Parts: sequence; structure tokens; C-alpha cells
Amino acid sequence: MMEQADRRTMLKGAAMGAALLAPGAGLAAAGGDRAKLDRAIAANHDAAVARLRDWIALPSIAAEDRDMEKGCAHMMMLAKEAGFQKVERVPTDGAPGVFATMDNRARRTLGLYFMYDVKQYDPAEWSSPPLEGRIVDRPGLGKVMVGRGATNQKGPESAMLAALHAFRTAGIRPPVNLVLVAEGEEEIGSPHFAQIVRRPDVLAALKPCSGVIIPASWQSPVDGGVAINLGAKGVVELELVASGEAWGRGPAKNIHSSYKAIVDSPAWRLVEALGTLVTPDGNTPAIDGWFDKVRPLTPREKALIAGSAAKRSSADELKQLGVKQWVGETGWQETLERLAAMPTVNIEGLVSGYTGPGGKTILPGRAVAKLDLRLVPNQTMEDCVAKLKAHLAKRGYGDIAVNVSGGYDPTETAEDSPLIKAERATYERAGVKTSVYPRLAGSWPGYVFTSAPVSLPAGQFGLGHGSGAHAPDEYLLIDSSNPKVMGYDGATAGFVDFLYQMAMV
Amino acid sequence: MMEQADRRTMLKGAAMGAALLAPGAGLAAAGGDRAKLDRAIAANHDAAVARLRDWIALPSIAAEDRDMEKGCAHMMMLAKEAGFQKVERVPTDGAPGVFATMDNRARRTLGLYFMYDVKQYDPAEWSSPPLEGRIVDRPGLGKVMVGRGATNQKGPESAMLAALHAFRTAGIRPPVNLVLVAEGEEEIGSPHFAQIVRRPDVLAALKPCSGVIIPASWQSPVDGGVAINLGAKGVVELELVASGEAWGRGPAKNIHSSYKAIVDSPAWRLVEALGTLVTPDGNTPAIDGWFDKVRPLTPREKALIAGSAAKRSSADELKQLGVKQWVGETGWQETLERLAAMPTVNIEGLVSGYTGPGGKTILPGRAVAKLDLRLVPNQTMEDCVAKLKAHLAKRGYGDIAVNVSGGYDPTETAEDSPLIKAERATYERAGVKTSVYPRLAGSWPGYVFTSAPVSLPAGQFGLGHGSGAHAPDEYLLIDSSNPKVMGYDGATAGFVDFLYQMAMV
Repeated sequence: MMEQADRRTMLKGAAMGAALLAPGAGLAAAGGDRAKLDRAIAANHDAAVARLRDWIALPSIAAEDRDMEKGCAHMMMLAKEAGFQKVERVPTDGAPGVFATMDNRARRTLGLYFMYDVKQYDPAEWSSPPLEGRIVDRPGLGKVMVGRGATNQKGPESAMLAALHAFRTAGIRPPVNLVLVAEGEEEIGSPHFAQIVRRPDVLAALKPCSGVIIPASWQSPVDGGVAINLGAKGVVELELVASGEAWGRGPAKNIHSSYKAIVDSPAWRLVEALGTLVTPDGNTPAIDGWFDKVRPLTPREKALIAGSAAKRSSADELKQLGVKQWVGETGWQETLERLAAMPTVNIEGLVSGYTGPGGKTILPGRAVAKLDLRLVPNQTMEDCVAKLKAHLAKRGYGDIAVNVSGGYDPTETAEDSPLIKAERATYERAGVKTSVYPRLAGSWPGYVFTSAPVSLPAGQFGLGHGSGAHAPDEYLLIDSSNPKVMGYDGATAGFVDFLYQMAMV
Repeated sequence: MMEQADRRTMLKGAAMGAALLAPGAGLAAAGGDRAKLDRAIAANHDAAVARLRDWIALPSIAAEDRDMEKGCAHMMMLAKEAGFQKVERVPTDGAPGVFATMDNRARRTLGLYFMYDVKQYDPAEWSSPPLEGRIVDRPGLGKVMVGRGATNQKGPESAMLAALHAFRTAGIRPPVNLVLVAEGEEEIGSPHFAQIVRRPDVLAALKPCSGVIIPASWQSPVDGGVAINLGAKGVVELELVASGEAWGRGPAKNIHSSYKAIVDSPAWRLVEALGTLVTPDGNTPAIDGWFDKVRPLTPREKALIAGSAAKRSSADELKQLGVKQWVGETGWQETLERLAAMPTVNIEGLVSGYTGPGGKTILPGRAVAKLDLRLVPNQTMEDCVAKLKAHLAKRGYGDIAVNVSGGYDPTETAEDSPLIKAERATYERAGVKTSVYPRLAGSWPGYVFTSAPVSLPAGQFGLGHGSGAHAPDEYLLIDSSNPKVMGYDGATAGFVDFLYQMAMV
């Protein structure tokens, strides 16, 4: 569920990076270490790219319960080979996770969050096989690797591992200790990730961390700019299911539609219940008490958004999305404030009865609405699910099942936290322009780190570029033809630099 | 769309037939003709069953535009072989129809309505191949032929043709002239059938008819009883489509769901619009002016329903349908009155966005509701579609497309018409108990015959039994093990008798 869509939009207006990251230029690494590391990155290039390709060849897909154990074992092997001294499989009620530590006798410790699973894919939609990891030319970008997981998230994660291999090859001890927690259920909403992170020994290992990052490859392909997000909306994915069976009215299975005259319809019941969840324009949640815990934007958050609004073009973003107008009649800045601050109740799918071409005269026994709810601080998933259920029950829809498949709370990290400072410093030293944005409108499970009991800063970090998460022809840039955008080795060097930067905070 | 569901329910309570149809017993045929015809039916049995099997092997499916020309040509061949002297292909804006006449120099003329198309099928759901027409034992029934179209409608239609073959074999001229009109689009709502029937030469041929029947095989498998329906509800099948493209708001295609905060949702728009079409319980149409033309049940219709209610068990029918209670809190008779008299707005399908397992965080650009509307006298399809569009437009939903795929007006035939009298007399002579019911809650395109300019009585007629229309393992009874229920030859003899009965009205 690691979502780039908003981020990509947000990057569009970022100022152009002024300088190319020259290896070794202006870095935190002492003396000749950085030159050795650069040579090691170059020497290891082919092996690192092969390591990513091999990983892409093993797709773990939690929604299909596909190769979860194999994926976990592969993740453990990758950690061991990168130098983690202790690597453990962590069983959960779902797919297993991985907990690994690397003690470098350093003063600071950095947490790493990895996902080893990928999104489903349909090979028929791809221009090269999704598990092959084929390197192809992409005009305007350079050479890219095409494969499921290339950018979401195996590509940037493997670049982080390549940075650790560079330390090993160069015979240099990494400047921070590392704690890795990995899960295999990110794409289904991380339903058991808290079971991994909150295990006492994992919790104890995370305690000394200065922050946690998920490696990312989100440089703008145009100007190389990167957005630093201070948080993300939470999300709940669920199905509302109206059925004759649960209702005690209407048919238990599909029956002939002529009976509608004397038999109740679960599909109509779902439609009526859905209608109570939002305002008549469909744009504002109308679930009882939904806004009780919503914290309004702070003046600083509004200022950050105003800064972002000035750099971005409403017309360009409408065009890119294929949308003619935003929901409100308000200005661009208000629209961006709404994007950051408004919780949403979205219909991602409707399924009932006959769904093929033409019609079929049936009265369906079951109707399903797939919803995703985006949450803002200080809403919580638990409270929101309870409120939704209470809202339905109060209106007599208590029989409509609320089947939550995944989700998590919103994420917030302070702008002045060591993690954000180190991210910004690394980007700036690399000559990459950054913009700070208060909250990603998409979601990632960083709340497990930012909320109690872990309570650490958490966010995305990474140079390099990839795109097509969840889509066909997902790719990661390997050799960049644009000096403002890092290729795979540049991204690897970026992680090396970030570790040195974290060592100093 | 020829629908048995209601009919089967309606038959459940019909009184048990007192006597088996003994060949030649109490018939209208003069002298030794009937014995000759019985011998001819027996002699032709294998050929007639093979004719049905060959027909089943050629499925014409209008929804898939599958073998429509071949199906039409086959229908023409069948008519010619049965003795129709003039057989013509009738082009329409859709699949072609067939117009055939058989002049038997008789005083009376009977119209026959045939459909040569069948419903879609999924071979994986069948216990024997749907196009094989395999004969299998069915405990409690006898030997049945399993195949798509076996009962809906090739089976009973082929028994009607077998009756005409019996006349040829016996060297006896059929006692009535015949006019056959056939279409290939019944299963998609007969969108072009009026083009066939209202062609001037077809209209002229139908003018002298005493009535029109569609052959049916609707004897109760329990007691052999048959319901005589004096009409049927009309039907409109349509899709309501909300899209960002037509609306000018929301996305033109699916976009990432995090944008819901600032982008309108066609799915929510559809939900809101749907909610205005029915009362909050989903059970009564709330479209502006929907009841303006509805004619209440007459005292005679109420009496017929009361008679039916007395013979049927509410508890049995609920159980058979898998339903725990009817819509209202009223009694059984009121429920059956509602079944006959209430127009319906039914959701037969909902489709939007992601419809697979689990979720996918998208904001869909399009949402579709598949509806079927059942109409009662004196509603008309044309008026109802116009009212639906006006209703939506008045509420600002004029951009929601109303895509009508098929349908027709309600059908009504007078209880004292020659056709109904002949049906009843034939059943009674065969010792089959009948019940008269004012209106099938399902639909068939009989309106083309009962309304102007044709204005003839029209209905179903036939002995024999089949089931599984539109479902897997559709079958027709060939050799009956229940003396109260006719097999294929008994059904054929029933058509012979009906022709003699029609000759006398």
C-alpha cells in the first residue's frame, strides 16, 4: 500500500536540483573512506543488480498467499549477506516477518523498515515479463529494470542493502547500528505488522533508534527533486457486505428478479446504508462522530502547504489526473489543504449480482461495497471502525458486515526530529532540492513506529527514481541519462551518505 | 427472458391431476385420425428426439452475437421440414427472425411464437456437456435430456414441430392454419421483435389468428398441474452508468484513492442517484409518476389470486426460495396480490472499480447499476423509460446514462378469449388440473401480440416438464416415470389435441 501517487504529484513543482551528486563530494564520511566506498559500489554494481533481479523473480503476494515462506527466507538471506549478525524469522497470525540487527559498535542506531511482498500483477498487461527484471531503454530516463517490485519496494530496499555490501567490500564498519524489521503483508494493509514490532525483543532493539526509514526511490524524473513528508494519512480497507443470510430478509442466494415484488433486496439495503456514510455530494464523511478527533491543520502545516501550492500548478495536476475540476469551488491552496486534512470515505469497488456484459434477471442475495477510509491525526483505525459499526447499527443496519481487511493509523513525524534533519541534510549535500510537505494523502504503516510504544520518527528516504507501483511495467532507474536523477549506484551512495548523516545527529 | 420461476411456484399448489392422458382418450380429433396420429408420434419418436438434440448442438446467443445467422437458417429448415409452405428470413436491426405460414385450408388460424436463441452457459457448471443433449436418468422424473435450451425453449418448440411431423406421417391435414413468427433475441429482451411482427405481410398473416402461443413444458413435476396465465408483467432491462467523463467531475478513469479528498466520485454519485429510485426499504418504486398509469387489480383478478392463495403454502414457497419472510407484514393473499400488481425496480447487478478479492485503493472513474424494471398494466416501456430519465434529470443526475438493452410492455389476455378456453379444454380433456392466474410476475414478449396493431390473445401452452432455464443442467423430460407428468411424446400429443381444440373455437 506504499503509495507514490500523491508524492509524484507533490514533486512536480519541486525546484530543480542545482548540482549532480558527484561521488565523494561534500560528504560526511571521514577521509578516504568515502572514496573506498565509491569504488566498492562500482565494483559491486553487477552483483547488486543481479541481487535485485533474483529478488524480483520471487514474488511473495499475501493476497494470494503466494510464496510467503520462501519470501521470508529470501529476506533473511539478504539480511545475512548484507552483514546483519542476528537474523530471525518472526511468526505472526499471518505471513512471517523478519527481525535483524547489525551491531556496529556505533553511538547511533537507525531502524529500517522493509516489505518483502509485492502487489498482484497480470503478465498480459506487461511489455516484458513481470518477474524477469529485464533491463530496457526508457527514453528520457536511461536504462531501467522492469519488474514487479522494482520500485515498490525491492528496488530501493536492495539499494540500501547494496550500501551495506559496499561497506563490507571496502572493509569499513558502517557508522550506525541497524535494526531491520520486515513484513510480507504491506500490500494487504499490514494486518499483523504490529505483532512483529511490538514483540518485546524487537521493541527493545528499536528503543535506541534515532528513527526508522523505509528506502524509497521517489526522485522526480524531471528535476530530481524529492519531497520530505512529515506524515501520512492512515487507512482502513474494508468490505461492507449486505446479505439475505445475515439480514434475515431477502434471499440467501440469487433468485429470479420477478420476486422483487415480494422479496427484500440486500443490494438496495446496501445502497441505502451507503447513502448515510457521506454528504449527498459524496465528498465529506457523514459517519456519526467522524470528526470528533480530527486535529485541524496547524499554522506551520498551512504554511508548508502554501509553499507547496505556490510551486505547483492546479491546471497541470488536473490534466495529469484526467479530472476537470476539484471537489470544491475554493482556490488551489484550500484544495491542497483539503487533500492533507480531509478524512475520506471512498468506494473502491461495488460488486453485486450479475456483473458481466448485458443483464441477467436476478435478485442478488448479496451485495458488497469495498471502501477505503483515509484517516488524519488524531483519528485511529480502531476508533473509526467502531464508529462506523455504531453508525450502521444506530440506523438499523447492524446486519451489514464490516469486514476489515487491513489498515493503520495516521503517521506523524516532527519537522525538527533528527531523522527529518538528516534526510534534509543528505539531500542538500547531494544537491537535490527538497520540499517539505505536512502529510502524504496516501498511506504507509509508519504509525507502528511513530505511535506508542515505539514512538520514533519515521519516514521515507532515498535517491533514485522508479514508477509504476501497482501498475504494469513497474520500473526502477538503473543507469540515468538525466544528471539530476540518480541511477542505482547513485541511490546506493545516497544510503551510504545517509548513514553517515544519521551518525552525526 | 421466458421465465418459469413464478410459474413453478404457482404450480406447486395446483390440485393433482386425476387421470393419465391415455393416447386417444376423449379427444377432439375425428374418428380414427387420432389413433393414426398416436402411431405416427410413436414411430417418429427417435427422429423427433434427434431433431431436438441437433438443435441444442447449435446454440445461438444474441448477447454474444454467436451463430445468429446459423440459428436463423436452422429455424427456417425446421419450419420447412415440419410442413410450412412459405418460410422467410426477416431481417431486423439486430438478429434476423423467421416468418412462416402453413395453409391447411382450415377455418381457424393459430399463431406460433418461437425463439431460436438460448441463454449463455458455463460448461464448467454442468454435469454433462450443455450442447450434447445427453439423455440421463433423473430419479423421480424419468429420463431427461440435459442441454442448454432443453426447456427454454427448444424442447417444447420441437415437440410442437413433432406434432406437425405426426400429421405429415399420418397423412392427415392439420385442423388449423398456422403462422409462425420466430426471433433470435428473446434472451436479451427482444429489442427488435416488433420489427418482425409489425412488417405489413406478417401483420396481415397474423390478423386472422384466433390467438398466439409459445410452446411451453411447465407441468408440475409433482402433480402434473399447469397454470394458465392471463398475462405477464412487462420488463425493462437497463444500465445506469455514472462516469467522470459524462459528469465533467471526478476522474475519467480509475485514479489513486487518496485523491478522494479533492476529486469527486462517480460511484458515490450513482449510489446517491439510486437511492432516489425506491422507498427507503427498497421495495416500492419512488420514480416520479411511476404509478400514474398503474391499473389496480380487478375484483376478478383478486378472486383468481384468492383461489390461488388457498391452494399454495406461503411457508413452502419461502423455503423453496431460501427466504425467511416476504416484504410486508401482510397476509399470504395480499403478498400474492403484490406479486401480481406491484411494479418493481430491481438491482440485478452492481459493478464499479475493483471487483476482485480483497481491496485496491482506487477511486473508480465509472460505476454501473444493472436494473430490471417490471411493469404492470397499463404502464408501457416507452413511458417508463422517459419517466426514469426525467426523474434523474430533475434531480441533477441528467449525466447518468440510462442505457436500455431490452424490454417490452406488459401482456394481457382475456380469460374468456378463445385461446384461453382452448387451453383449458385441452388440459381438462387430458386430465390435467389447471389453475388460472391473472399475471405472471415474470415477463415474455407477448405484448407484441396482445397490443395494437396485432391485438390477439396470447399465452403459453404445453404439456410435459422441463426445468433449469438459464441455469446449469437445464433439462426436458423425455420418458416420464410419473403418470401425471407427460414425457416428450405426451407433450407432442398435447399439441395435436390443442390444434383440434383451436379448430373448434
